[in-house]
Order: sequence, then structure tokens, then C-alpha cells
Amino acid sequence: MNVLETAGYLRELNNVLILTHVRPDGDTIGSAAALCQALRDLGKTAFLLYNPEITATYASCAAPYWAGNGFVPEHVISVDVAAVDLLPENASRYAGSVDLSIDHHPARSSFARHNCIDPTAAAGEIVYDIIRSLTPVTPLIALPLYTAISTDTGCFVYANTTARTHRIAAALLELVDVAELNKALFRTKSRIRLAMESRMVSSMELYDGDRVVVMQIPLSLREELGATEADIEELSSLAALVEGTDCGITLRELKPGRVKVSLRTGPRVDAGAVCSRLGGGGHRAAAGATVDGTLEEARAAVLKAVAEVTEA
Amino acid sequence: MNVLETAGYLRELNNVLILTHVRPDGDTIGSAAALCQALRDLGKTAFLLYNPEITATYASCAAPYWAGNGFVPEHVISVDVAAVDLLPENASRYAGSVDLSIDHHPARSSFARHNCIDPTAAAGEIVYDIIRSLTPVTPLIALPLYTAISTDTGCFVYANTTARTHRIAAALLELVDVAELNKALFRTKSRIRLAMESRMVSSMELYDGDRVVVMQIPLSLREELGATEADIEELSSLAALVEGTDCGITLRELKPGRVKVSLRTGPRVDAGAVCSRLGGGGHRAAAGATVDGTLEEARAAVLKAVAEVTEA
Repeated sequence: MNVLETAGYLRELNNVLILTHVRPDGDTIGSAAALCQALRDLGKTAFLLYNPEITATYASCAAPYWAGNGFVPEHVISVDVAAVDLLPENASRYAGSVDLSIDHHPARSSFARHNCIDPTAAAGEIVYDIIRSLTPVTPLIALPLYTAISTDTGCFVYANTTARTHRIAAALLELVDVAELNKALFRTKSRIRLAMESRMVSSMELYDGDRVVVMQIPLSLREELGATEADIEELSSLAALVEGTDCGITLRELKPGRVKVSLRTGPRVDAGAVCSRLGGGGHRAAAGATVDGTLEEARAAVLKAVAEVTEA
Repeated sequence: MNVLETAGYLRELNNVLILTHVRPDGDTIGSAAALCQALRDLGKTAFLLYNPEITATYASCAAPYWAGNGFVPEHVISVDVAAVDLLPENASRYAGSVDLSIDHHPARSSFARHNCIDPTAAAGEIVYDIIRSLTPVTPLIALPLYTAISTDTGCFVYANTTARTHRIAAALLELVDVAELNKALFRTKSRIRLAMESRMVSSMELYDGDRVVVMQIPLSLREELGATEADIEELSSLAALVEGTDCGITLRELKPGRVKVSLRTGPRVDAGAVCSRLGGGGHRAAAGATVDGTLEEARAAVLKAVAEVTEA
């Protein structure tokens, strides 16, 4: 469905539950919150399903919208959820009954009855267009939408930032002051996070003629510093900063014997293809997978996959 | 002079030399380069005075516009130069003959014959408005203007980012692809710079109930890591990241007995007032000064000034 069809479809719904994805980021939470507020502005009952992995960063954005235990939805919508296995565990009972998926990931496998998908936009940009067809954009809608768009584009720096992104941001900034939000999202790091980054940098390893950089987050480091989930989120972008490299690999030990692999790559390396080989997926420039093994085994596996996928 | 008057004034000039400020940043270089290109598009002869402190980051932006030794200007314009003592040494012979100052700093003392000053905008935004009154904005103009606006706003994150900033960015992105430029400006750090940041973080000090953070760049660290000027520029923004603090102080040892003090502050602390007491100046949220003494003496002086200026 295109934006207008999606808006028309939404106009007919009521008692809506909105689902977000595991390890929720600003894009899924902000887009879902804005959509929820827009549906409420239309007089509908709408909630977000509580996401058990919500971090402090986005908690205040989602808090007004969490569904209570007693809420029985008539319709279920997912936002920014690329595949059914990316739903949180408490959403699994809705996995077979998603009426509408609004997303910007290239479709892996459709799980919803209807789909509104645009891989060229941030999820927040799609939701912005849908909302504009439904109801006036108010400050209560603008702030979560700005959260969605700014975080998905790394604050207008990633390659997915377009003239349209800036036009939408301009429209939103006419409605809300985002100075404090920007400071909190992009210009604030906990001392623990700074210490983690400092340690990741001092122990980083370079491979393949210094084009590939590997950074590691051992469980022991996390425990030593007392890091929370919020201290760790988005740490995989650190490896992508290293000058001269075009393949930043972050290995995070989730528990003994289980490692989350994250890739951020330049044009030479297809991150999605690398992570597919490891049972994961994603975009060409950013992808992830979760593998069994020690940090050393995960490093060997991902370096092997990078070599196989990448032309010499 | 307002924008239209300034445009009208520029239309009458020829053989123009444009001056930038010491320790040149993207705002002064990008704005000056864009203005220079616009004047050339109008058929005029225009150059930038070579800035001896230009870093690799902005060298390619300015390179097409450097004046040769033989160029004798009829008119001199300064861009983003808040005071005459912020001109590079090789510009001192023009200090008394600046025809026009285009700037966004609150006027300390006027040194130019005419002034076009708007403290509410990035320098690049003022220059964008002036250029639009003069000549079509081309890709050759758009790229340095984007450099100016994006660097002055920290890539649309600082409190000086407005709806207008995003509208201009949208217009520029219709003309040029900035993905590579964004990556180079905001998503790339040399290994030396990463190592410097890592060391600054691991040695940071907190004062005043953990609201004030001090980071230091001793000469010895710079020498140990073999850091260039580009590895060090803008490092003062690091201290502003520390969660829970609202006064980030960076002390950089320029040479033995001479220290550059940089402040980045929240609303509680007036950075400009603090730095005025130390013989420097700047904005409320960002300011600097250069003081005589050791790092320890500079730290004591700036902490004293912060305490004096700030209500308890």
C-alpha cells in the first residue's frame, strides 16, 4: 500500500496495538509513538505494546503510550519491524495477526496482511507522510517523529539523509524546540560509556591492510564498568569512525558462548551479505548477526565471511 | 547593512580579497569559499587570503580560491571574523582596511567600514541569503556552504540549529550529494585522534559536585602520539559530552607556559563571561581564551573564573 492507501486504511481502524522491534531504537519507538498519538488525535484508542528492552534514552518518548494488561486490540500494526523474528518475545502472540507493517527495510519475508514499505526513507519519514494525510502534525507528534528521523540518520549525517529528511526536520522544528533533545540524544555520553569507548579504542585490532577494524565488548568489560544497556547501545558506530578503514566490526559478548556481531561498512564490503552468511541480515552498509562461540571464534568467523564476500 | 544592502554593495565591488579567521573552521572557510565562488560567477575577480593554519579537513574546500602573491585587492571582506585580533598574521596588513565584515558573532568592536551581522544565524546562513540575492546557487557554491552550515551546527545538533538551517540544508542537498563529505567531516577520526580522546577521557577530572569536567591536552601527549593540528581541532567538544556536567573545560598546552582554554557550557554557566575574565571571549555556550602559565595554573584560573561568574 502507498501512503494514501495506508492513511485510508488507518482511518477505518480502532483499538489499535502498535508493535516495535527488539533492542528498540529511536526510529521504531519514535515512529510508533507519533503514529499512536496521531491515531488518538483522530479519536481512536491506540497503544504501543510494552517493549521489555526499552532503554532510558527512549523511555520518556514511549511512556505515554504503553498498553495496559487489559487492552484487547482489534488491529495490530508493526513499525520498523523488518521480520517477524524481530518482534519482542511478548509480541509473539501477535506474530500471526499483524494487519499492517510500516517499514523501510527491504522486505525479507512478508508477515503482515498489508505492507507500507519504502526502503528509500527513514521509518519516521514514512510515518510523517502517513500522518500528514490523516491529521495536523502537532508538537506531541513532532517530537517523537524528530526522535525517529534524527536517530535513524545519525542526526542528519548518514548516507540515508536526503533533502526530504531536512525538509521534514524543518517542518518539525517549526513546532518544537529540539535543543535539549539533541543534546540528550547526540551530545551526551555517560562516564561509563566514555570509559567503554576509551577501552574499545585502546584495544582495537586492524586486519586486511588496515582496512578492517575489530572492536570488542567482552562481558568482563561490561561487568567491570557496571554498564547498563543504555551505556552500550549504538556502540557499534564507534568502529565505523576509524580513518582509513571501510569495514568496522563490533563484537559484543551477550553471554558466555554467544556473540552479537555488528558491521558498518563502506561500498567495498556488503555488510548484509556478510551477516547473511552468519545467519543475520541488514542493509549493505550496516548489518548484524548473533553467533555461537567465543569472541575469538566470532572474530574468525566474521573475518572469514568478510573475505569471502569481498572482492580482493 | 542587511542582506539586501550587502548584496547590493557586493555587486559594485571587484578585485575582492576575502579574509578568514585564525585556527580556521568549516564556517569561516566554507562561507568564504562560497562567497568567493558567487563573486566569480558574477564575473568578478575574487580570492581568499591564504590561511596559514588551514587543516587537511578544509584544505580542498579552500584550495581553488587562494590568492597568489601578486594579487592586489581593491576591496577586502572578512567572513566569520569576530574581532580584528582574530585575523591571521599574514592578514594584519589588511586589518585597517576591511571594507565589509560578514559575521554572526555579537559585535565586540567594529573594525570594518561596513558590517553585515546576524548573531541568530550560522555565518553560512547569512552568506547563503546574500548569495541568493546575487546569483543562482550552484553545486560549486552549495558544497562549501553545506560545509559551513553543517560544521557550525555540529551537523544540525547544536542549539543554533533552526528550521531555517534545515530548510537551507534541504535546498543545498537538492544540488549536491553530501554523503562522502558528511562521512569525512563527522564520521571519521584518525587513529591518533581516537587515541587522544581515549587518553583525555581516562584522565578527566570532575569538580563542583561533578558539574564541571576538565580535560587536558598536554604538549607531551601530542608529541607522544605524533598528533597534527587536524588530530586536535574541535577536541574541546569532547568535554561537553560528559553526562551530568554542564561546564566542559578543555586545557590545551600550546607551548610551555601558554595554555588555550576552551569552554562548552549549559545555561548555568556563561562561557563568554568566564573567558572574558581570562582575556578571551565568545558566546554564552562556547568560548575560549589563551592564558599564560602551566596547565595547573590555567586550570586554577579557569575554575576560579567559573566560580566567580556562576551563581552557586
